[in-house]
Amino acid sequence: MLGQMMTQPLLISSLIDHAEKYHGETAIWSVNTTGGVEETNWAQVAGNARRLGSILSALGLEPQARIATLAWNNRRHLETYFGVSGAGLVLHTINPRLFPEQLVYIMNHAEDRVLLLDATFLPLVAPLLPQLETVEHVVLLGPRDAAAEQIPGLKFYDEWIATGDPEFAWPSFDENTASSMCYTSGTTGHPKGVLYSHRSTMLHSFGSNTRDCIGFSARDVVLPVVPMFHVNAWGSPYACAMSGSRMVLPGPDLSGEALVGLIDRFGVTLALGVPTIWQGLLAFARGSDTKLASLERTVIGGSACPPSMIAEFRDDYEVETVHAWGMSEMSPLGTTNVPLAKHANLPVEEQHRLRENQGRPPYGVEMKIVDDDGNALPNDGETQGDLMVRGHWVLDSYFRKQDEDLLQDGWFATGDVATIDPDGYMTIRDRSKDIIKSGGEWISSVELENIAVGHPKLADAAVVGVPHPKWDERPLLVAVSDEGQDPTQDELLAYFDDKIAKWQIPDAVVFVEALPRNATGKVLKRTLRDQFGDALTG
Amino acid sequence: MLGQMMTQPLLISSLIDHAEKYHGETAIWSVNTTGGVEETNWAQVAGNARRLGSILSALGLEPQARIATLAWNNRRHLETYFGVSGAGLVLHTINPRLFPEQLVYIMNHAEDRVLLLDATFLPLVAPLLPQLETVEHVVLLGPRDAAAEQIPGLKFYDEWIATGDPEFAWPSFDENTASSMCYTSGTTGHPKGVLYSHRSTMLHSFGSNTRDCIGFSARDVVLPVVPMFHVNAWGSPYACAMSGSRMVLPGPDLSGEALVGLIDRFGVTLALGVPTIWQGLLAFARGSDTKLASLERTVIGGSACPPSMIAEFRDDYEVETVHAWGMSEMSPLGTTNVPLAKHANLPVEEQHRLRENQGRPPYGVEMKIVDDDGNALPNDGETQGDLMVRGHWVLDSYFRKQDEDLLQDGWFATGDVATIDPDGYMTIRDRSKDIIKSGGEWISSVELENIAVGHPKLADAAVVGVPHPKWDERPLLVAVSDEGQDPTQDELLAYFDDKIAKWQIPDAVVFVEALPRNATGKVLKRTLRDQFGDALTG
Repeated sequence: MLGQMMTQPLLISSLIDHAEKYHGETAIWSVNTTGGVEETNWAQVAGNARRLGSILSALGLEPQARIATLAWNNRRHLETYFGVSGAGLVLHTINPRLFPEQLVYIMNHAEDRVLLLDATFLPLVAPLLPQLETVEHVVLLGPRDAAAEQIPGLKFYDEWIATGDPEFAWPSFDENTASSMCYTSGTTGHPKGVLYSHRSTMLHSFGSNTRDCIGFSARDVVLPVVPMFHVNAWGSPYACAMSGSRMVLPGPDLSGEALVGLIDRFGVTLALGVPTIWQGLLAFARGSDTKLASLERTVIGGSACPPSMIAEFRDDYEVETVHAWGMSEMSPLGTTNVPLAKHANLPVEEQHRLRENQGRPPYGVEMKIVDDDGNALPNDGETQGDLMVRGHWVLDSYFRKQDEDLLQDGWFATGDVATIDPDGYMTIRDRSKDIIKSGGEWISSVELENIAVGHPKLADAAVVGVPHPKWDERPLLVAVSDEGQDPTQDELLAYFDDKIAKWQIPDAVVFVEALPRNATGKVLKRTLRDQFGDALTG
Repeated sequence: MLGQMMTQPLLISSLIDHAEKYHGETAIWSVNTTGGVEETNWAQVAGNARRLGSILSALGLEPQARIATLAWNNRRHLETYFGVSGAGLVLHTINPRLFPEQLVYIMNHAEDRVLLLDATFLPLVAPLLPQLETVEHVVLLGPRDAAAEQIPGLKFYDEWIATGDPEFAWPSFDENTASSMCYTSGTTGHPKGVLYSHRSTMLHSFGSNTRDCIGFSARDVVLPVVPMFHVNAWGSPYACAMSGSRMVLPGPDLSGEALVGLIDRFGVTLALGVPTIWQGLLAFARGSDTKLASLERTVIGGSACPPSMIAEFRDDYEVETVHAWGMSEMSPLGTTNVPLAKHANLPVEEQHRLRENQGRPPYGVEMKIVDDDGNALPNDGETQGDLMVRGHWVLDSYFRKQDEDLLQDGWFATGDVATIDPDGYMTIRDRSKDIIKSGGEWISSVELENIAVGHPKLADAAVVGVPHPKWDERPLLVAVSDEGQDPTQDELLAYFDDKIAKWQIPDAVVFVEALPRNATGKVLKRTLRDQFGDALTG
């Protein structure tokens, strides 16, 4: 027997409807590609999303045709989030930092039919156009631009949607319909596509809006520094529409100076981004007179947040850091570090220490750790195992790889090694392929890196396992000195004393000018292992 | 093309799984029927819910058989919420304040197969047992009880589930399956059943957990004073399992003294209930030395909250009141009064005034007001119309009334007259049948009552429209004096001066010992209209 309740599909269009109806005049500040700021609001974004939806619907594309974007965080990009998916098409947000051959690969693999792009990326894309096999329409996200007119057939977004219907009625369809996609930027092989559904996106939005996850409020001014081409800015555009939050879309300049300027000018209360961004912001803030007075919370994810960063935000700016963890394959939210009631009774140092791990899952995500045979390991905070996840917003298979048997008994293997404590708080120890196996014991390269970057003379650091004649593998510190600094190997290794067990301290240090990183900023550890593989044996 | 994400049904069993796994040791304090307090936790509740589920599953009942409860807010009742629905059966929570003939009617109408009840209600139920046509098992929610053994066949919950399987695996099924039901206690006619689904309950839980709705946190100690037989305590047991909140289940004694004791003893941060309950609590608190120090928020709904109550909580106890509105037909959450960002810039008196209305809907509920012909009226904060709702947790039809055409173009008519302001904040003006139509103008009886109850000499008040020779109808104040007080008609009517337009002030006052109320405490205005119909003409 079924319940007798209304059943409506969970569609992304209903988010922008809600924002338009109940938060129409709520401000959205957007930095355009040339640095100017324009103010819009949810009602105007909704109107333009409908215009775009109507124009796209008139193109006669197949259902769920892929519509690609190459754009910064700005209001036109925000309009595509709702206009494309709302019309029943699939929004394919592309990371412009990919290498050109990867760009061509994923656009052909995704079979993108329309490409909407910021002016910034025209020079990148123009020479690639002949290789894009399926793209029929290229649209510049802006007004008519004399310089760009030389590209034959190029359309201009503002003109293009001007003839669209601001009253366009969103179509209704199965909530499991594909809504959007991202390609993961692994450090090896071709990028793989994750194809989100309306349902997974909506449930993810609900989950992220619960108070103990991120909990966006209509009183927040939200600054997503994490790019809208990076797992949909962690879903913040959807979640902010659901909650009617004000937004600041920072455009191309993510320097510390620019971000501090936006925070102070628009009273940002909640900012989201990766640790690298906050390093730049804090470095600028230290040398300025800002107190980041409006800022209440930062959500930091994408890679492990150094404890020193959490402490600096807390102690110098009274900003609470919510350490978060996720993956493209998880929409992306997997865990957020938000305290439990019982933590309030602990000594303050212990409370601080507990905020450093990746946190616990909201309802909707389940986690477990397993050994090499897939047997569940104890959640004791000590035992390390391969982290497996499942839930309402976790992928089932990669795009066009439905036939591959990706899941293990219904669980997705994250490729991370983690511990989970009895309360469900998870600590990423390492990527499965980066963990250092020394004499049968596992050493986390991440833990060593977190210590190393706290050294005052270092700007950046990575640790990789390299072959060792006795212990199979031992840790090697790859260090980038801070400007004007010239630390010694002994000085750096001594820094680990009392911070970690002696046998885990790296055996040696090599200095480099910069760490090799992929398009999304992940350190290419394989490159480092290739380069320095003989450091301890050579 | 569908997305390639995991699809799992949204089932209530997954909530208790989550609470067990991630908040297992989180305390739940429960007052039993004789006033003692026991401490349990989510893991123990989960274990008992599984035991109950396994026992119920072994009874050989039809799918979605109804399992009735007649119980206070206590931990065994909480266990039935998850054990019954988790096993694929339908939890039918019954209001014990119904008249015996209504009890018999709804239990036969629902075709309840099992009845689980607190000892308190044995005297009520025992004489009715022969009339209950479908009940096969009667189970006392407690240990074996010598006094109760005289009832033939009576089972004792603690013994009954002791043989159950604490590892019982919850079945999986369609998320639209019926999960639970409540009968609405109208002021006329037979009660009508609302049949919730797992999906509607889960989406309601997500909605209520968003930060700007109620937003339960794992750091909260939640006291649901609203009964678990009254629209599932507004869904708080589900939402608290989702967020891993601590709970205080207050049992039978809802006196001001008892509630203040629980709040202060267990550090309650968030309490939910109807205005009448808080009147008692505030009256006791005033005469005691409590500061309600732990209490941060009260969610007040069920009927309109007098502004004086919001002010007293705020000014004397630093407690924020979230004024909420809903209906059994809405699971029940329709709106909560939570501020917008722009309100922070208003003068403080204006901010306070804005907190008095019923609030705005979370994502998931839509509202509109219409005229007698069903045409949408403007959301200008002035125009009054019949309030219509739709959404993910709004009913489609009443139980066993699928054939009746309940909805109007997909919207449910709430039976309320309301205004909606441009930001979506809704004010209930009156029940459609209680609004006073005076010379073509509409006067809200609720607004007059809110003023009247602020009079220091009144304990209670109602306003009804009674026939008038010139104006068709005029308001009549039905007043209950406070103990030892003897206010005059002139004194009471003068109290309305400057608080409302002159033409809206009641024409006369009649004094009564107490207002007639139905089983859930709603004033029976029809009775008052019958009784005092000739007050202005006779």
